[in-house]
Amino acid sequence: MRMGVLGSGMVAQAISARLAELGYEVMIGTRDAEKLKGWQSSNQRVMIGSFAETAAHGEMVFNATDGAASLQALTMAGTENLSGKILVDVSNPLDFTDGFPPSLTVFGTDSLAEQIQRAFPLTKVVKTLNTVTARVMVYPLEVANGDHHVFISANDVEAKSQVMELLRSFGWVNIFDLGDLSTARGTEAYLLLWVRLYGAMNTGMINVKIMK
Amino acid sequence: MRMGVLGSGMVAQAISARLAELGYEVMIGTRDAEKLKGWQSSNQRVMIGSFAETAAHGEMVFNATDGAASLQALTMAGTENLSGKILVDVSNPLDFTDGFPPSLTVFGTDSLAEQIQRAFPLTKVVKTLNTVTARVMVYPLEVANGDHHVFISANDVEAKSQVMELLRSFGWVNIFDLGDLSTARGTEAYLLLWVRLYGAMNTGMINVKIMK
Repeated sequence: MRMGVLGSGMVAQAISARLAELGYEVMIGTRDAEKLKGWQSSNQRVMIGSFAETAAHGEMVFNATDGAASLQALTMAGTENLSGKILVDVSNPLDFTDGFPPSLTVFGTDSLAEQIQRAFPLTKVVKTLNTVTARVMVYPLEVANGDHHVFISANDVEAKSQVMELLRSFGWVNIFDLGDLSTARGTEAYLLLWVRLYGAMNTGMINVKIMK
Repeated sequence: MRMGVLGSGMVAQAISARLAELGYEVMIGTRDAEKLKGWQSSNQRVMIGSFAETAAHGEMVFNATDGAASLQALTMAGTENLSGKILVDVSNPLDFTDGFPPSLTVFGTDSLAEQIQRAFPLTKVVKTLNTVTARVMVYPLEVANGDHHVFISANDVEAKSQVMELLRSFGWVNIFDLGDLSTARGTEAYLLLWVRLYGAMNTGMINVKIMK
């Protein structure tokens, strides 16, 4: 299966490398291929392309761009290249205007995931992984042997099911189905707590487990 | 020790009853004493007073009013009645303008806890318990035998320490010190995830445990 990963930062790199490790045919999409040349030298199985090439390549596409620039990046990727496909949105609409800790650019009665879904109505947006740091996204067993939860939100039940299967292949054992895409408002807002947990614990190798 | 609990809803009732059970001299403060007459008949150790009487009574005071009305309620309680005291703020700035699920009236670069602290600079505001439902606040062992976390945020380290002691008497074993009062932005924003967890699980008898 061909995977496209939009973005060139830590999250895009981590997801691309992990997908390649699992045997997928991966292209990572960036505006600036030069930036990824060094990284690619140790990740030679991952191809580098433009946003549009990467979206066209992927049968499933990841949005791992900066949340503040995601809509613009996805527009460059192209509606036709994303149409009918699953878009796994792992981004967060972090607003660093006032420095650290960040606020969010969208909040409460809307979410970045829903903005993306409205902008690309023929794409099946699945929000997940945005509540953990890049390393935990793809190697969840490195935190508490996987004894913690990842959340998933989507309107398309079949798309959600496919992404859950992929998450299991990353090592996720506890996948919490929050419901439709509007529930991404909850996981995006949680980032404001996550940055404080990170601040208090001095590590991003953390996550939450839902207890009842 | 004398305790004042501002508010007349489920949270105020739960905290008042629990404090009375633990032997404190408790007054619950409301604008409408009639509303609490029925409740008081089975909680006779709890006195009923106005906001001002309750704040004057308490050596430690709880803000368990609706977040959207908290600043107004605290103003009625009176600056002089709150001065020099610990105010345990358990409220959330929930905005039900668009129905359920709620948004928040303050968010991101500010929090209700900080608004209260700015409005009452001589009061020691401690934010805690706002991430769980009323019953879990005061009987934490009823969820997963207490194997989950409550968060605490405050600028005054000694006040925070006193409130942590009180939380332990409620049964809390895992108290997560997030830092200064600005970290309440994180726990207040988390409510947007909490309402979705509640929606997915059909119970409020839940909480998160921080895993690393």
